[in-house]
Amino acid sequence: MYNLVKYNILQNNLINQGDNVLIGFSGGPDSVFLFHNLRLLKETLSFNLYASHINHMYRGEDADHDEDFVRALCIQYGVKLFVKRKNATEYANELHVTEEEAGRILRYNFFRDNLKSIGGGKIAVAHNLNDQAETVLQRIIRGTGIDGLGAMSLVKDDIIRPILNVKRSVIEKYLKENRYEFCTDKTNTQAIYGRNKIRLNLIPYLEKEFNPNIQNTLFRMSEIMDKDSKIIEKYINIKYQDILLKENENEIFFDLYKLKNMEDYEVGRIVRKAIELLKGHANNIEMKHIEYANEFIRNGKTGKKIDLSEGLIVEISYNNLVIRKNIEKVEHFEYNIKVDLPLHIREIGKTIVCEILESSDYVFNNKKSFSIDYDKIIGNLVARNRISGDNIIPCGMTGRKKLKDIFIDMKVPAEKRDKTLIIADESNIIWVEGYRIHNNYKVSSSTRKILKVTIMEEKDEQ
Amino acid sequence: MYNLVKYNILQNNLINQGDNVLIGFSGGPDSVFLFHNLRLLKETLSFNLYASHINHMYRGEDADHDEDFVRALCIQYGVKLFVKRKNATEYANELHVTEEEAGRILRYNFFRDNLKSIGGGKIAVAHNLNDQAETVLQRIIRGTGIDGLGAMSLVKDDIIRPILNVKRSVIEKYLKENRYEFCTDKTNTQAIYGRNKIRLNLIPYLEKEFNPNIQNTLFRMSEIMDKDSKIIEKYINIKYQDILLKENENEIFFDLYKLKNMEDYEVGRIVRKAIELLKGHANNIEMKHIEYANEFIRNGKTGKKIDLSEGLIVEISYNNLVIRKNIEKVEHFEYNIKVDLPLHIREIGKTIVCEILESSDYVFNNKKSFSIDYDKIIGNLVARNRISGDNIIPCGMTGRKKLKDIFIDMKVPAEKRDKTLIIADESNIIWVEGYRIHNNYKVSSSTRKILKVTIMEEKDEQ
Repeated sequence: MYNLVKYNILQNNLINQGDNVLIGFSGGPDSVFLFHNLRLLKETLSFNLYASHINHMYRGEDADHDEDFVRALCIQYGVKLFVKRKNATEYANELHVTEEEAGRILRYNFFRDNLKSIGGGKIAVAHNLNDQAETVLQRIIRGTGIDGLGAMSLVKDDIIRPILNVKRSVIEKYLKENRYEFCTDKTNTQAIYGRNKIRLNLIPYLEKEFNPNIQNTLFRMSEIMDKDSKIIEKYINIKYQDILLKENENEIFFDLYKLKNMEDYEVGRIVRKAIELLKGHANNIEMKHIEYANEFIRNGKTGKKIDLSEGLIVEISYNNLVIRKNIEKVEHFEYNIKVDLPLHIREIGKTIVCEILESSDYVFNNKKSFSIDYDKIIGNLVARNRISGDNIIPCGMTGRKKLKDIFIDMKVPAEKRDKTLIIADESNIIWVEGYRIHNNYKVSSSTRKILKVTIMEEKDEQ
Repeated sequence: MYNLVKYNILQNNLINQGDNVLIGFSGGPDSVFLFHNLRLLKETLSFNLYASHINHMYRGEDADHDEDFVRALCIQYGVKLFVKRKNATEYANELHVTEEEAGRILRYNFFRDNLKSIGGGKIAVAHNLNDQAETVLQRIIRGTGIDGLGAMSLVKDDIIRPILNVKRSVIEKYLKENRYEFCTDKTNTQAIYGRNKIRLNLIPYLEKEFNPNIQNTLFRMSEIMDKDSKIIEKYINIKYQDILLKENENEIFFDLYKLKNMEDYEVGRIVRKAIELLKGHANNIEMKHIEYANEFIRNGKTGKKIDLSEGLIVEISYNNLVIRKNIEKVEHFEYNIKVDLPLHIREIGKTIVCEILESSDYVFNNKKSFSIDYDKIIGNLVARNRISGDNIIPCGMTGRKKLKDIFIDMKVPAEKRDKTLIIADESNIIWVEGYRIHNNYKVSSSTRKILKVTIMEEKDEQ
């Protein structure tokens, strides 16, 4: 096997004897390179190798060819393979995210499902040095901090990247010398948006005009940044403990006096850490929230509180600064809806208005209103929040989808799920707030009467 | 005056009442903008404003025009102006550095001289937001770490940058609206090398193809990095004190056991800090030295030592790790040189051989040998180290230059100056090791006999 890969794995304990290792196996050169290296290492370091392939179905016959290729290799080397077929373009539209992002969600969800079925383990992905350099450059262009510049790591949580410091050219040479076949992803060679544009236009330009070794230079920088961000994490952990009075899963109490004696940039990092701990992730933390909190800490008075973001509150209470989840428990509710009679739902502060329209008055659905075929409604119409077992056939699809999975896909946080409004009849969920209507209720050419439902928030009504 | 500049200065205490402030005044739009803002602020915040202009003489008439322009403005507003004329191209050749670097050395040396003459103060330079973005981009391309990405600061030591967060376009608009004239630097609009290529080619390309706000994005990143690098510095200072046993200007003792229990990246930063403290600056510290020291700390045995770089030694002594300057004091020496009789100088471990050649045997000077016109030698030839008042007319120049200034220009560290070999006759220094020969002794068409001097190091003789 290739020495550097072996060194990476053994030196950093990426894989230990007896581990389950699931390789993300697209069939492209990088994953084929990783596959062969892992199956060779398996001969000396005893571990269990599995593979996971997603057929994204967006390249027609190519996609099936890739699946067949991966399947053949796995059979040849006795590696159990998991396969999922899912069109990433459709999924992207469903989730309202980019195709790149949809593909990522699909892959990692599938990986975790596979891991669960084999009793846990590690996911091995085939990012290489060039991918890392591209990631760094992309983040610089979009704007980033030290954590972003650290980019991808050899190991993070249950994900390992054994070939992260191997150059693409080295991979290609190795595959050629060993006569290992691989599939070519044609979408990689079209310079349209994002990553491809960086890979195919920007990097060659920088190599030609500024630094022929730019990819190595960027990779080196990401290594240094990764280390430096660990130093920052250590420092912030020390300071966090130093000012912490008490904490539980819903609230964190800091010593306000000590906080005020810290520099802005230290306070910022500590507030960020607190938000992360309470929310369980660092998504959607914006600089403005941090600056807002910083300003409040400097100048706020006891008894005052501010809304930070997404259900977090910062409060000053004498010498305590408290950051807490804004938990208002929403009980189960269910109300009958009557046409033309506004229904106010106090639990979520929203009002529903239903009206019957001629089919010629149809307007497209938007965030605040939707239309359905009135004659398809079965029995009473109700407004309620979720109950166990809820599911829907989403508009444009044929199969049922669990509400729970919709929440996961849409990244609806746990505390918001009981606040999500659902319109249902006696047989089906007809509409889920922020999502879409049931396929069977959609307005069609045969629709005679339309029921238009409008949802108003309290602030809309004023 | 422009509000943001006022805010920068007052909020960050860049200038306090009674300060001496020396503005680097090229006459270009940025420095004119800074000049007017400072002279306006002076009306309310009482401080002393001075200006410093270097006429680089490389743009012919333009350069004199700029000097006249700056002089006129200073007279108009009653600001004392210092002017120096020096050709940066020549100076660059002299110092064997780029013209950009030569310009920088010239400017800051002149600034410091001016400051000395007015009894100290601050240097105000006119870097703007775009300069900062370009600096960040240039460093990314060359390779850098977090300190490099932090780039320039509003204040560092005695340098202040009051317009660092002001965009070039804002500066131009302000100058136009107030009808302030300025000079145009034509060298700024030629996209040839380095900075200009980044400003005129790369940034417009990134703006067009990737991010129209790339300059703001890069500026934001540098601000974040500047703060993060301060966190790292704080952490390393804490850890440094934690493992420090004792220190003086020549050596630093660490607790080896504690060092071994730290992560590689922490050890690396601490070794870097120790080197910086002993040398007084961070120049020329390379990654390989840090890695070498790290490896030694992990695996070295007591009594072992390694040469780190530029006169530093790392040594293990039981549970101490010692980093020390390698100081071998060299006393004054002076030896007569005889033709054809090798002279060994034990103080510096070098041997000199002189031979007389026909002028037709002339070869170019190099690091280990040089040739002079034999008949120009006045009296005895000696090999010695420096004495107070040494000076030379460097080959290619007409004026005398102090040896002390040569050492400064060539960045010869203090501990190496007594080890630098000098060849002299009874009237002049003829040659300085690592520099060049005296102008009057050079071989010319009228030379009849050549004296060729060859210097061998101990390792060469084996």
